[in-house]
Amino acid sequence: MKIGIIMGSISDMPVMQDAIDILKEFGIATEVDIVSAHRTPEKLFEYSTTAHTRGINVIIAGAGGAAHLPGMVASMSPLPVIGVPVKSSNSIDGWDSVLSILQMPGGVPVATVALNGAKNAGILAAQILGSHDKLVQAKIIAYKLSLKEAVNKASEGLRSRE
Amino acid sequence: MKIGIIMGSISDMPVMQDAIDILKEFGIATEVDIVSAHRTPEKLFEYSTTAHTRGINVIIAGAGGAAHLPGMVASMSPLPVIGVPVKSSNSIDGWDSVLSILQMPGGVPVATVALNGAKNAGILAAQILGSHDKLVQAKIIAYKLSLKEAVNKASEGLRSRE
Amino acid sequence: MKIGIIMGSISDMPVMQDAIDILKEFGIATEVDIVSAHRTPEKLFEYSTTAHTRGINVIIAGAGGAAHLPGMVASMSPLPVIGVPVKSSNSIDGWDSVLSILQMPGGVPVATVALNGAKNAGILAAQILGSHDKLVQAKIIAYKLSLKEAVNKASEGLRSRE
Amino acid sequence: MKIGIIMGSISDMPVMQDAIDILKEFGIATEVDIVSAHRTPEKLFEYSTTAHTRGINVIIAGAGGAAHLPGMVASMSPLPVIGVPVKSSNSIDGWDSVLSILQMPGGVPVATVALNGAKNAGILAAQILGSHDKLVQAKIIAYKLSLKEAVNKASEGLRSRE
Amino acid sequence: MKIGIIMGSISDMPVMQDAIDILKEFGIATEVDIVSAHRTPEKLFEYSTTAHTRGINVIIAGAGGAAHLPGMVASMSPLPVIGVPVKSSNSIDGWDSVLSILQMPGGVPVATVALNGAKNAGILAAQILGSHDKLVQAKIIAYKLSLKEAVNKASEGLRSRE
Amino acid sequence: MKIGIIMGSISDMPVMQDAIDILKEFGIATEVDIVSAHRTPEKLFEYSTTAHTRGINVIIAGAGGAAHLPGMVASMSPLPVIGVPVKSSNSIDGWDSVLSILQMPGGVPVATVALNGAKNAGILAAQILGSHDKLVQAKIIAYKLSLKEAVNKASEGLRSRE
Amino acid sequence: MKIGIIMGSISDMPVMQDAIDILKEFGIATEVDIVSAHRTPEKLFEYSTTAHTRGINVIIAGAGGAAHLPGMVASMSPLPVIGVPVKSSNSIDGWDSVLSILQMPGGVPVATVALNGAKNAGILAAQILGSHDKLVQAKIIAYKLSLKEAVNKASEGLRSRE
Amino acid sequence: MKIGIIMGSISDMPVMQDAIDILKEFGIATEVDIVSAHRTPEKLFEYSTTAHTRGINVIIAGAGGAAHLPGMVASMSPLPVIGVPVKSSNSIDGWDSVLSILQMPGGVPVATVALNGAKNAGILAAQILGSHDKLVQAKIIAYKLSLKEAVNKASEGLRSRE
Repeated sequence: MKIGIIMGSISDMPVMQDAIDILKEFGIATEVDIVSAHRTPEKLFEYSTTAHTRGINVIIAGAGGAAHLPGMVASMSPLPVIGVPVKSSNSIDGWDSVLSILQMPGGVPVATVALNGAKNAGILAAQILGSHDKLVQAKIIAYKLSLKEAVNKASEGLRSRE
Repeated sequence: MKIGIIMGSISDMPVMQDAIDILKEFGIATEVDIVSAHRTPEKLFEYSTTAHTRGINVIIAGAGGAAHLPGMVASMSPLPVIGVPVKSSNSIDGWDSVLSILQMPGGVPVATVALNGAKNAGILAAQILGSHDKLVQAKIIAYKLSLKEAVNKASEGLRSRE
Repeated sequence: MKIGIIMGSISDMPVMQDAIDILKEFGIATEVDIVSAHRTPEKLFEYSTTAHTRGINVIIAGAGGAAHLPGMVASMSPLPVIGVPVKSSNSIDGWDSVLSILQMPGGVPVATVALNGAKNAGILAAQILGSHDKLVQAKIIAYKLSLKEAVNKASEGLRSRE
Repeated sequence: MKIGIIMGSISDMPVMQDAIDILKEFGIATEVDIVSAHRTPEKLFEYSTTAHTRGINVIIAGAGGAAHLPGMVASMSPLPVIGVPVKSSNSIDGWDSVLSILQMPGGVPVATVALNGAKNAGILAAQILGSHDKLVQAKIIAYKLSLKEAVNKASEGLRSRE
Repeated sequence: MKIGIIMGSISDMPVMQDAIDILKEFGIATEVDIVSAHRTPEKLFEYSTTAHTRGINVIIAGAGGAAHLPGMVASMSPLPVIGVPVKSSNSIDGWDSVLSILQMPGGVPVATVALNGAKNAGILAAQILGSHDKLVQAKIIAYKLSLKEAVNKASEGLRSRE
Repeated sequence: MKIGIIMGSISDMPVMQDAIDILKEFGIATEVDIVSAHRTPEKLFEYSTTAHTRGINVIIAGAGGAAHLPGMVASMSPLPVIGVPVKSSNSIDGWDSVLSILQMPGGVPVATVALNGAKNAGILAAQILGSHDKLVQAKIIAYKLSLKEAVNKASEGLRSRE
Repeated sequence: MKIGIIMGSISDMPVMQDAIDILKEFGIATEVDIVSAHRTPEKLFEYSTTAHTRGINVIIAGAGGAAHLPGMVASMSPLPVIGVPVKSSNSIDGWDSVLSILQMPGGVPVATVALNGAKNAGILAAQILGSHDKLVQAKIIAYKLSLKEAVNKASEGLRSRE
Repeated sequence: MKIGIIMGSISDMPVMQDAIDILKEFGIATEVDIVSAHRTPEKLFEYSTTAHTRGINVIIAGAGGAAHLPGMVASMSPLPVIGVPVKSSNSIDGWDSVLSILQMPGGVPVATVALNGAKNAGILAAQILGSHDKLVQAKIIAYKLSLKEAVNKASEGLRSRE
């Protein structure tokens, strides 16, 4: 049980680190690499056609600008692919990566998360594992409780100020 | 093993039918219902907090306009939630449903597909099941082959015309 | 007579403070809390279904990104709900919060104000109280006069410079 | 207790009729007129400065394109003003009316509803009255129940089809 | 012969100064004031209905956000009105001021220039005067020559570097 | 005293006819031609550099898509140039023509009107003439009165219906 | 000397036919095929890595939605690749295909033309051939003259009407 | 064999330098100049109509805002013209330059690259030369290999960290 995390460029790492961190928090193994749809197309093919044979269950792919990595991986892998639109420099406010990941044609879905939403990509990957692994699902439920507690704490802090 | 398919309004049915159809094609059971975040909030709570206890593995939620259904289900269910932005009448070109489903805050992901992309939501749900069920994964692989064949046939038709 | 002010996250506080301040200026009581649609859904239900029974007349709800808080409160409360789109980090220029608050479906209105327009949300809440309370209305009229005077003063300063 | 409904042009009537209809359903009196910010500025002044003295509690103003009517009324009336962005012909997809109503400067709020959302404007006006009139509030609560019932009926119809 | 320059707020002054400066360069008299559509509506009326009787030939009006000043002046004055969309803080990237000035309804034009384009507003005002005043037109022609010379100088500098 | 009306293509004629009609209504002479920035650049030069020597006082230029005609004419003529963004087929919702006419660089203004706003271009041209011709200005004032009367008539019709 | 024309789907043919037609008009050979980045990735690889070895000088690639075909071909072929954004059904007004073709990362350019601009793609391909083939360049020059004549004819027709 | 590189203003130089640098890397001669469509229209004509007679094979033109330079050059030169949208100050997020370069009418293509994508413009120019010059094509192929190697190195660095 492993999540493959790839990105188009090392410059996407500060954003994609959030996915690695949250999955580590859930105790889920990750395999991280750089695969560029535009600069290493052979590696893209190799990666996409073999990931499911190497024990990877879900692929998280992050890219910016005209972001083709998530969609191209999705075209060749039978695994669920989660796409993270990265707001790169010279991006047109992030619209380019959002639309080139989200608007996939019929037959080839990419599970798109919010702009720079690598943390959510990690959680979604865990939820996918959790859909058939009760232990992981229990961790998700616990995580959601921790979110609630954090809000409740902030709420108490706020109200005690008044 | 079952996919829950919900939508905010019966008017979303023509779009959401594509998800039902493709899942039927894959031989995957579905449970379809209308759950409106804004009109039946109690049902939303009930549905979201119990779906994973009733044998549902993945939830597909479609909604238009200020589309809160997918995100609200995701806030309460530990299951992976796939959001389908529906281009409703009076929508501002679909931007409203796309952004209100995609741009979820950290901690609560929604796996967003393309505008009106219910077919892809169905395929993504199947891929999620397939990530731990080799039979379903084999069907995904076969499906991808059928896509390729359809393109190859069209290609032959086109070239024979010349 | 009291205005309920809620926000999805403590990080919305710098924006929402403007609503608190202007209402204090009008001498109108406020009750401030953090209620997250996505992290504390039970509290959301509790808050929304009981606010009108606890002496609150108007609810101001601020949230960013895929902002579901104002719309979800509006779905459950009979009170007028004022939505403040907050421009959060990783927002797509604020469009996400604006559209996910504004474009509510028929039957469930949210009174939306400008991006980060918490001050106007406070004034609008006062105007709503003022629609049946002549004292508050008089304060609104006085406030508008003070706006005019400030512009007139600036105008004089500008013209005396010439 | 009366709602003033105005619009910039008779061509906005098909959209604005929804506000009149829903308020009639709630048994709330309306006063309907055409007031054009750009063609009848004197009438705009007259209307805005006197509405609150003639028993009107809330103003609903609809306009398209560079829609100045709601904001200009709001600048002169102490009443809460609800703005309805109308998608007129030659509109740039409705963005012009949405932004020129929503993005009011600090001090002069307009309670903006969705594009062509006149029905919601009517409901919001009723909610404003209901914030201090228990009978109207009870009607709002009943209306919300009727929305829920309609969804439940559609849900039953859908599930019985399966 | 005089150009009236007005703005909605003193905070627009840094942008609008460019119009004053270029008109001074052309030796054309200006009358500068703050007139807020939303805060000083009576002054707006007074200004708009009398400007053409006080020797003003063209009005330049700058405003940000839901910018109603240029359009409202245009609704009441027979003079040509030049609108300058100002990118204010909390603007949605300037789209709000651009669209609420540009998209005026049939019958009430505003001559809109680029975002923050006060300099061009000044030049356009001079061109309007120059359309019936040969001396001013000659200055416009000279100005255009100076633009050309500046580019030619930069071009020479660039090529000599090679 | 004459208004030059040009357009990039005969396909712009249905939109641009509105400018011709309203100017005829004002009794102002027009000279209409097709000048394509991209297909007849020599004619563009010829037209732009000579229009002011042939008795033309204002130029109205309409074009769609990447609309360069108004800006290029403005770069060569000392006359005020009014740009009409035309929503052509294959336009991206009109944004292309709006932005390529509006966002002119410092030094070369184009007086931009609303999308397809040729009627307003005609009125603006008349207002420019009227800024130094009291007879034309009187016609503008009369025209504005006629707009007001039309609204008042519609208002009466509406109120008598109730 | 040959132009390769490919498209992601047979449904793009009505748009892409314009490229074929204009190149036929120029007497330039074309090779037309369907290559789907998402459905036939192996064919995409095969095509992209061999086109330049089979006598193709320029590749025109058209695709809609999250359009990855032009960029993926460009990543593997040393030839100039011209991208045609196609406005497909369920497109978000064409923005998706425009941005996912245009916003390519540094190192991998796609020569993007207007939305549905297949005709221009054909002309651009001819211009590329013409940059080193005087006969083709002469045809381009002749073509531009024919554009001019068509405008001049329309101009004459228009003026004779007056 | 030479690439002409022009820009609308010296302020575009920091962006356009990337095109010069990459072409120098490929050993391809460049001729750099400032040609402003709006400030030096005669030079624009001169340049556009003679470039192909002076040994230039491809023109790269960069401009910001309402960017008319690339399209105007394309209207007069038979050469392929590559347009670089520059994100200038006061640009509306770059949309203005992108759309006014990309959306050229039928008959007059501009090969548009990404916002600020001058490096890609240089590579595209080299690819155009390479389409009939095997030595240049070999350099392109080598360049693509170097991109791949850089990614592979980054990938190794990343994986060795784990």
